[in-house]
Amino acid sequence: MIDVIAFDADDTLWHNENLYSVAQDRLEALLAHYGCKDGVREALYETEKANMGNYGYGYGLKSFTLSMIETAIRLTGGQVRASDIQALIEVTKEMRRAPIRLLDHVAEVVPALAASYALMVITKGDLYDQEIKLSRSGLAPYFRHVEIVSEKNKVVYRSLLHKHQIAAERFLMVGNSLRSDVLPVAALGGYAVHVPYHITWEHETVGHQRDATQPPYIELEHLGQLPALVERLNRSHDQ
Amino acid sequence: MIDVIAFDADDTLWHNENLYSVAQDRLEALLAHYGCKDGVREALYETEKANMGNYGYGYGLKSFTLSMIETAIRLTGGQVRASDIQALIEVTKEMRRAPIRLLDHVAEVVPALAASYALMVITKGDLYDQEIKLSRSGLAPYFRHVEIVSEKNKVVYRSLLHKHQIAAERFLMVGNSLRSDVLPVAALGGYAVHVPYHITWEHETVGHQRDATQPPYIELEHLGQLPALVERLNRSHDQ
Repeated sequence: MIDVIAFDADDTLWHNENLYSVAQDRLEALLAHYGCKDGVREALYETEKANMGNYGYGYGLKSFTLSMIETAIRLTGGQVRASDIQALIEVTKEMRRAPIRLLDHVAEVVPALAASYALMVITKGDLYDQEIKLSRSGLAPYFRHVEIVSEKNKVVYRSLLHKHQIAAERFLMVGNSLRSDVLPVAALGGYAVHVPYHITWEHETVGHQRDATQPPYIELEHLGQLPALVERLNRSHDQ
Repeated sequence: MIDVIAFDADDTLWHNENLYSVAQDRLEALLAHYGCKDGVREALYETEKANMGNYGYGYGLKSFTLSMIETAIRLTGGQVRASDIQALIEVTKEMRRAPIRLLDHVAEVVPALAASYALMVITKGDLYDQEIKLSRSGLAPYFRHVEIVSEKNKVVYRSLLHKHQIAAERFLMVGNSLRSDVLPVAALGGYAVHVPYHITWEHETVGHQRDATQPPYIELEHLGQLPALVERLNRSHDQ
């Protein structure tokens, strides 16, 4: 019997990766003036990975900003002008100010489910940014708990379930990232629901093939299908 | 009867502001090559304040890095070289790698108090950075709860007390910031203990004069005095 439903936030409740994609277009356009034509996104991802090490940057917009700056400096051999670096900073300030665009069905599904289930948000990223986005989304009142964490893996989910005294078999997590939202929850014996977003940050990708060693999870096309799924799962449990 | 003791982290458990001060020296030295002699720290603080608005940066090392970069660009009229911007980024990466230096008495007082009281950390800043610092400090096992929040004011403390089911009169908070650690807790009727650090970030300062409208709080010179204080407060309560 499921009674707690947890949602990832970015690209599950609202559009996010699209803003990052636009910012990368701007970085590419800017660096084209310095003769950097190819491999800008790949170089950026290399910088992000390097910055994500043990003493690294974690996730979020500020980390992304600093990685864009470093990438621009490196790819131009230090020739990038300060005014262009400031322009990159402005790009990310615009991202911060961009209105929150909820994904389809979210505005109906979240309030509807909140009437019958305890809802949570479990998101990683920058604490301040995620709080601001949740507050601006208008969805905050529907969530009983909001957990902003620095990483989403099996250990973290286990400790969140323990902290909130939730048995895994009563818990359903929904999100767009197989790596962060789906596989660790499925591995703990919870219900894991994957709703793909049309863009996935490379860091969140896992091997494309579903293999036999992966724990089972459920795939939905969009969040509008979630209420019927939860109802069906709980009904099958009643029988 | 006090049974929960909460600590601020930066400049209460370990040295922190000293690293920021050294970084500002480096920024000043770097900008001196561009003819910027005076007012660098003031200009940096202006940038930090501007960046801390509603859609701003919050607290922490990445915010500080971006504010240093913006300040360097602005004060040099866009003349600062990319290699110098990279140098500023490297300064903050060094800060991230710097060993955690516990303040005097912390290594004895925290384990001793943990034997009799539920200890918490309540800190603001970057989620990822604060977790890493706590883990590297070796103190993590002594804290029952760690709360990393985006702001520390009366509303936030009230909701933390509610979340953990702690009555204000059973709660003692100790920290170096009057604004973030002491006054809001005192205003809620908790025990608030101020242990000044020798440097205070300008944002954390409040008027120097203790005025009659401030709720009462306790001032200690160093954390070594905390166990005796807690014992005395609890004893006076017994009588």
